Amino acid sequence: VGYRKGANAERELMRLLWSKGAAVVRSAGSGNSYSPDVVAIINGRAVAFECKAWSKDVLFVRHEQYEKMVEWSERANTPVFIAWKYPREGWFFIPLAYLEPKEKHYGIRLDDVKRLSTNLDVILGKQGVLF
Amino acid sequence: VGYRKGANAERELMRLLWSKGAAVVRSAGSGNSYSPDVVAIINGRAVAFECKAWSKDVLFVRHEQYEKMVEWSERANTPVFIAWKYPREGWFFIPLAYLEPKEKHYGIRLDDVKRLSTNLDVILGKQGVLF
Repeated sequence: VGYRKGANAERELMRLLWSKGAAVVRSAGSGNSYSPDVVAIINGRAVAFECKAWSKDVLFVRHEQYEKMVEWSERANTPVFIAWKYPREGWFFIPLAYLEPKEKHYGIRLDDVKRLSTNLDVILGKQGVLF
Repeated sequence: VGYRKGANAERELMRLLWSKGAAVVRSAGSGNSYSPDVVAIINGRAVAFECKAWSKDVLFVRHEQYEKMVEWSERANTPVFIAWKYPREGWFFIPLAYLEPKEKHYGIRLDDVKRLSTNLDVILGKQGVLF
């Protein structure tokens, strides 16, 4: 994923979160410390998003990056979601913990992501979980 | 304040917040939407900081920027603090609401900031207010 494509996806996610009433910060992504790409804050609580604009059927995160995400999430006591933008299908949101550890990376399949994706209004606490 | 000086102050504040156990995001500051320079998240709650590295005895914020800060703070339901780094005196933290409206800007004097500055541990909820 090129820088521009990633940055465009982040800006699109920011607009989406803003449209739902959240305040938003996009990370400057300074090299020496990890932080998620986009953080939304609403009702005083934060939710973080790592953006992926991928057109493959599996999403990977390197072990090292995954561990930094977990550390950040634990420090913040805030959920970190993978926000996967799939071409012509829109956004899917899954908690970091749904990724499965493999030998070289953590990964999740697109069909699992589609099945398990959480509604953004639920993530932002604007709506209870519906069964 | 030059870009580099401001960015260095932001990074220093990030390190300070990280050293106190918070997760941190530095804003990419994309042109079309406002967000505070640095957001700390700890125990699931966010606190935002607008960094100022000023060596004058009064701090100013333009009306337009002040109003964007207030909007962001209200959306997030999260306090926004002015983090003023004064040369050789360190950091002072004051809530946005302490700035006084003047004709052309909101402002606060350094001596008032010194008197009213809030302890960072208190801001981060690590410590109750001490009298």
